[in-house]
Amino acid sequence: MKKNAFYAQSGGVTSVINATASALILEARKHKNIGKIFAGKNGILGALNEDLIDTSKESISAIESLQSRAGGAFGSCRFKLKDFESNKKEYKRLIEVFKAHNIGYFFYNGGNDSADTAFKVSQISKKLNYPINCIAIPKTVDNDLVLTDCCPGFGSAAKYIATSTMEASLDVKSMAATSTKVFILEVMGRHAGWMAASSSLARKNKGDAPHIILLPEVIFNQKKFLGQVKKTVSRNGYCVVVVSEGLKNNKNKFLAEADTKDAFGHAQLGGVAPYIANLITDKLKMKNHWAVSDYLQRSARHISSKTDLDQAMGVGIKAIQYAVKGMNGVMPIIVRGKGKKYTWKIEPAPLSKIANLEKKLPKSYISKNGMDVTPKAVEYLQPLIQGESFPKFKNGIPEIKDLKLVEVKKKLGPWT
Amino acid sequence: MKKNAFYAQSGGVTSVINATASALILEARKHKNIGKIFAGKNGILGALNEDLIDTSKESISAIESLQSRAGGAFGSCRFKLKDFESNKKEYKRLIEVFKAHNIGYFFYNGGNDSADTAFKVSQISKKLNYPINCIAIPKTVDNDLVLTDCCPGFGSAAKYIATSTMEASLDVKSMAATSTKVFILEVMGRHAGWMAASSSLARKNKGDAPHIILLPEVIFNQKKFLGQVKKTVSRNGYCVVVVSEGLKNNKNKFLAEADTKDAFGHAQLGGVAPYIANLITDKLKMKNHWAVSDYLQRSARHISSKTDLDQAMGVGIKAIQYAVKGMNGVMPIIVRGKGKKYTWKIEPAPLSKIANLEKKLPKSYISKNGMDVTPKAVEYLQPLIQGESFPKFKNGIPEIKDLKLVEVKKKLGPWT
Repeated sequence: MKKNAFYAQSGGVTSVINATASALILEARKHKNIGKIFAGKNGILGALNEDLIDTSKESISAIESLQSRAGGAFGSCRFKLKDFESNKKEYKRLIEVFKAHNIGYFFYNGGNDSADTAFKVSQISKKLNYPINCIAIPKTVDNDLVLTDCCPGFGSAAKYIATSTMEASLDVKSMAATSTKVFILEVMGRHAGWMAASSSLARKNKGDAPHIILLPEVIFNQKKFLGQVKKTVSRNGYCVVVVSEGLKNNKNKFLAEADTKDAFGHAQLGGVAPYIANLITDKLKMKNHWAVSDYLQRSARHISSKTDLDQAMGVGIKAIQYAVKGMNGVMPIIVRGKGKKYTWKIEPAPLSKIANLEKKLPKSYISKNGMDVTPKAVEYLQPLIQGESFPKFKNGIPEIKDLKLVEVKKKLGPWT
Repeated sequence: MKKNAFYAQSGGVTSVINATASALILEARKHKNIGKIFAGKNGILGALNEDLIDTSKESISAIESLQSRAGGAFGSCRFKLKDFESNKKEYKRLIEVFKAHNIGYFFYNGGNDSADTAFKVSQISKKLNYPINCIAIPKTVDNDLVLTDCCPGFGSAAKYIATSTMEASLDVKSMAATSTKVFILEVMGRHAGWMAASSSLARKNKGDAPHIILLPEVIFNQKKFLGQVKKTVSRNGYCVVVVSEGLKNNKNKFLAEADTKDAFGHAQLGGVAPYIANLITDKLKMKNHWAVSDYLQRSARHISSKTDLDQAMGVGIKAIQYAVKGMNGVMPIIVRGKGKKYTWKIEPAPLSKIANLEKKLPKSYISKNGMDVTPKAVEYLQPLIQGESFPKFKNGIPEIKDLKLVEVKKKLGPWT
């Protein structure tokens, strides 16, 4: 029997999450037992509020254009469903909406918090006796999902960071004789240092930047760090530091802790680069510059990795295929081939083993002094940034095609 | 009679300053009355210290590869020659080095401070009776040189800013329902708002970001600003602010003033984005994110403007042609055609009318409320970011070819 599908984007977006959506929608259109694809307006809130966008109203070329569009085209959200037991109301509302719109497929495109939500939704088949095929689709620049070899979105952020580190370091190098000696780039990564680690891909020759990589997995040692900066500048003329936003001190406090928390209760970070910069000014009296990439690094579709883009589209296609096969509570994950040449394929993995877990940098990826990564890390990271897939430019910037975003007529009362 | 040439990079580098060097060196190799091109190691310091790089040792393909290399390949410097009267010693040393290496051409690639240095050097023909053809070549992301329609380096930074603003705003837009409502991007521009203004090129439709542009030409009005943010968020769901590092308060103080000064005595800035972010958190209680591009925006060769690159190369070629014609104390400037379709050509202009002057945004480019630019500004800016010229990528990042950088054997004692 033909059932409609619900697709939603969740959590922080990436430069290729729309490519996943594009591939998923185009694949779904090929399957006779899938009716329409409704995209949730602002993620799962779209389901709860019955704010459904009818993607069947979009032309093929409009859906294809999503492949080169940054951000989350249908809106994302930071909203985690509570436990089934503590908030049955939310689940009952979901089922109400699903029933009203004949939805039998649920696709949730997010990170580990979202895998948890998807896992809970996948259980309503059993617990509330509503038949649903729920597939979580990986997406996170943090690269911290377990089981999968890497996460769609990460490779592109890594390419942005490697390229930016390389470009800025050529700049600093040329200024160092009379001006800026130290450059600090702050990158994302709350608990896992994958993004900071990817800056190592900026290197070509010995002595190339980055010279110091500060990871959230390693407690910040101020004395050791300043010693390393001093040594690098005296040997090299300049020093480039890449620092993760999640860097902590020996009291287990974020160096850049702000007082605000996000909707998941995580501390909201930002500002470790100026902290480090002040330290260098104060203690070493060295002129320095600092940059904070923030959203720029995760939305930089103009420099997405082709490998990452292919994988982002691949998981979208597989999600549909798994659902049509009747799977529930799984995630299509990237599996790396064992050979020397990089290969990858996609396989299903159970959400129960993914939800809420976090993959940090393994010890073997962190250098002995704690301020760099090992060749093993580089070997892992290198393939993920390979290939370019520049968007089409119009008027000097990447072209963004307008979507119709037609909302489905509501059949239910408002959700309270 | 055949004379050698000296070429030096000066001040903050751009993503296309090496393209100017490349075009200049390749053009010089065509002229019989120019011998070798010596590049100053770290700008004019290379002349004073007799640190000369012999570019004739580099292959054609190595010189061509400079066209896609960020930073300043020979090293730049922040060093301004003192007045002729107050420091004759420096000028005498220059002549000593020029004589020792048979240098009759002097090319200085920089901004308005550098135009001043070049102007002083051009006068030693007359004042110290040493024949020299001195040409200053424009370069600055600040776009603040007078007479020239625009400055090589600016168009590329503008393209980076427009693209980044567009990409990040698609990201914020998708997060705004439950999370980040305001995004702040800090861009360079100490006294002139050209770079901040270029973010306006990110817009396509009405309501598109950026919603507020804070320029150094307009005193910051906190109340008006916060009102505008509030209005934008309630109308639009989110608000993107682009702010120039040089934004000042009504006491004529930089909002982000640091205590350090650079070698030219300018206050060194950075950090107005976190200032604005704190304001929004405190006064409006709105979740926000901020980014500081710093060196990333001026070194982003991966997204340079083709128009800018062509102009950067054009001024390099013309510099050689002017020098060979016997000109002295001039700069090749970009002259915009008067027709509706954008055209440009290069003409010589006297350094005496350029040195030390600063071109700010004209009043007609600033919107009435002081927090945006006018259509006239967009009309001026639009052509400068047109066209792409992606570098060749290798291993996932832009390829950087190694240069030999062979230093010329010293003939003089050290400069003290």
